[in-house]
Amino acid sequence: MLKDSLVQIAINAREASNKLQYLTAEDRSFALNRIKAVLENKKRDIFKANEQDKQNADKLVKAGTLSASLFKRLDLESGDKFATMLQGISDIDRLPDPIGQITYSSKLDEGLELFRVTCPVGVLLVIFEARPEVVVNITALALKSGNAAILKGGKESILTLTALSSAIQSALNDTVIPPNAIQLVETREEIDALLDLDKYIDLVNYPAACNAAETLLIHRSILSSHLLPLVTALQNNNVLLHLDQESLSQLPPSYDTSRIQSCIPEDFDTEFLDLEMAVKVVSDVEEAIQHINSHGSKHTDAIVTENEQIAKRFMQGVDAAGVYWNASTRFADGFRYGFGAEVGVSTNKTHARGPVGLEGLLIYKYKLCGNGHVVSEFE
Amino acid sequence: MLKDSLVQIAINAREASNKLQYLTAEDRSFALNRIKAVLENKKRDIFKANEQDKQNADKLVKAGTLSASLFKRLDLESGDKFATMLQGISDIDRLPDPIGQITYSSKLDEGLELFRVTCPVGVLLVIFEARPEVVVNITALALKSGNAAILKGGKESILTLTALSSAIQSALNDTVIPPNAIQLVETREEIDALLDLDKYIDLVNYPAACNAAETLLIHRSILSSHLLPLVTALQNNNVLLHLDQESLSQLPPSYDTSRIQSCIPEDFDTEFLDLEMAVKVVSDVEEAIQHINSHGSKHTDAIVTENEQIAKRFMQGVDAAGVYWNASTRFADGFRYGFGAEVGVSTNKTHARGPVGLEGLLIYKYKLCGNGHVVSEFE
Repeated sequence: MLKDSLVQIAINAREASNKLQYLTAEDRSFALNRIKAVLENKKRDIFKANEQDKQNADKLVKAGTLSASLFKRLDLESGDKFATMLQGISDIDRLPDPIGQITYSSKLDEGLELFRVTCPVGVLLVIFEARPEVVVNITALALKSGNAAILKGGKESILTLTALSSAIQSALNDTVIPPNAIQLVETREEIDALLDLDKYIDLVNYPAACNAAETLLIHRSILSSHLLPLVTALQNNNVLLHLDQESLSQLPPSYDTSRIQSCIPEDFDTEFLDLEMAVKVVSDVEEAIQHINSHGSKHTDAIVTENEQIAKRFMQGVDAAGVYWNASTRFADGFRYGFGAEVGVSTNKTHARGPVGLEGLLIYKYKLCGNGHVVSEFE
Repeated sequence: MLKDSLVQIAINAREASNKLQYLTAEDRSFALNRIKAVLENKKRDIFKANEQDKQNADKLVKAGTLSASLFKRLDLESGDKFATMLQGISDIDRLPDPIGQITYSSKLDEGLELFRVTCPVGVLLVIFEARPEVVVNITALALKSGNAAILKGGKESILTLTALSSAIQSALNDTVIPPNAIQLVETREEIDALLDLDKYIDLVNYPAACNAAETLLIHRSILSSHLLPLVTALQNNNVLLHLDQESLSQLPPSYDTSRIQSCIPEDFDTEFLDLEMAVKVVSDVEEAIQHINSHGSKHTDAIVTENEQIAKRFMQGVDAAGVYWNASTRFADGFRYGFGAEVGVSTNKTHARGPVGLEGLLIYKYKLCGNGHVVSEFE
């Protein structure tokens, strides 16, 4: 039964996607503006749903099963969050139409012309985490780029997500875009079932790794001078540390190690997603690169050095979406890169890498216009 | 055991790929020239292997288990095939270096600069069919773009492939490129095992669909005037036809139907890969588009019409790598598009679509150079 209803969701999305191929930039712009207006009108309902989500989450925080930082991300009412979300729709609407751009053309023969033209990928399946406003960001990006989308957000914000997506669908009802262009699913089981329906789904964006630093590699030559101040600074900021034997041996015997552990090999393959970090001593940049390429997430890696040659070697050799020299890994974000709204940060090595915005939701097709041309004339 | 040796092949490829990141354009060019020279020197050994492959295949042709057209594709000796293969290496060598191109840059702040730079995808797994010279084409494309590759060709040309790849590895021995940058595997079972090793493999290119026309959709309004001449022309060229009921009913009672079958639904989802075609009557371009989007291979679809509006609608609505108007689908090929050598034609809708050449073997990374910049200053 679950399977049947998900096949229907996937078919709906594919049919909506087929219709989206024909729409003009004006059609898509009209829809974005309509969505913005309806969200504005339904602000009170959406806030009511958000209140309820926060009340439910608050119980989980008190029970110790939800972190305070996750709770904070649920909130859609504080400050100018809602207004920023709406402004995001207008920002995306104002971008140039990404569809139908000719990125290559060639006259193959008299009367035979080849064009490579940008077009939507088709049906996106997007899984994201706590922040409910992401459903609106992704809707705007998907429709601007002519894609249908099936969305799943964090279960803690389910009421807010439902309110937002029902506002979106009701807005689409007033446009030429089928409301099924944007559909919400709620459970992990539904995602598993949808992943089997790859006949209908063209692109899946999993939740991206976040941009917290997980591992610190420190050069042996500066161990005695730099380790202690570094560890102390991190400890003062409440970071739980996993130190390798060599760095551990550098701490004075009297050092307070209540927030310091001896690291195990698995620590270097772990995304702690918390105030937690592994520390390892390396003998040179080659060892650092090799460690990162074996254990890293391929998201973002940074080197701190005054030596330009070493920095260049690092940036050339490390296989990651972002490689930084003397800058915080927290810059790994579409907004900070100046790209505007993003779907997420990709650690893939095909299609889109790093922040994924409009460009990552497009592919191209080749259009060939002839006059009865056949190949044998070209042999 | 098989698993262990394949893990080793995959690790070898990954290590070679890591080394390839640092090589200069000159290093890679030197390797291509060396490969060309060694292939030239070992021409006699390679031809001997090819002779043996052809003798073995000839028995299969006589036993009726291998088609004559496949046999023809095995051959590397006839005409200027070998010379063309070597020339292909030089052609690829002469192309501009695709790596390290800055495709985007932005100054985020004083002393904080962001660059998007092209880089190799990493480790390619390429599965191709009968023509053994493909191993050389792909080697040249892979090395030019700084990628390592694991290759599997058709089993009928295994001796030729082994001779070619051992020549390639021996050539690489004289260069800074690790010989393991190009490795050959022989069986389907090895591919299955490699597909599980996605930690080491970044991109898989399956054999592409070929560009033979599989289905003819004919507009009802021209059925009585055009069907019979079409069917007769196809029959005269020995094409086995699968006609739907409506088109079948158009044939005169006396018509010779020994090479005509009544079509079944599965015919529209079948790649015949032979002189064979399904025929279906449609009432308009919308029905044609819907049929193609439900049953097509997403490779290439063509419309024959004098009506520009209909043609544009077709090219907009059909979801395929190539959409043609009044031109043969056999143009779907990197050489005919003027792109030079290709790895294959992609029917994917992400990363690369249509003919896949150098560009499809590249991705990018973001390089950020700062001066101790942290994010909090930007909040």
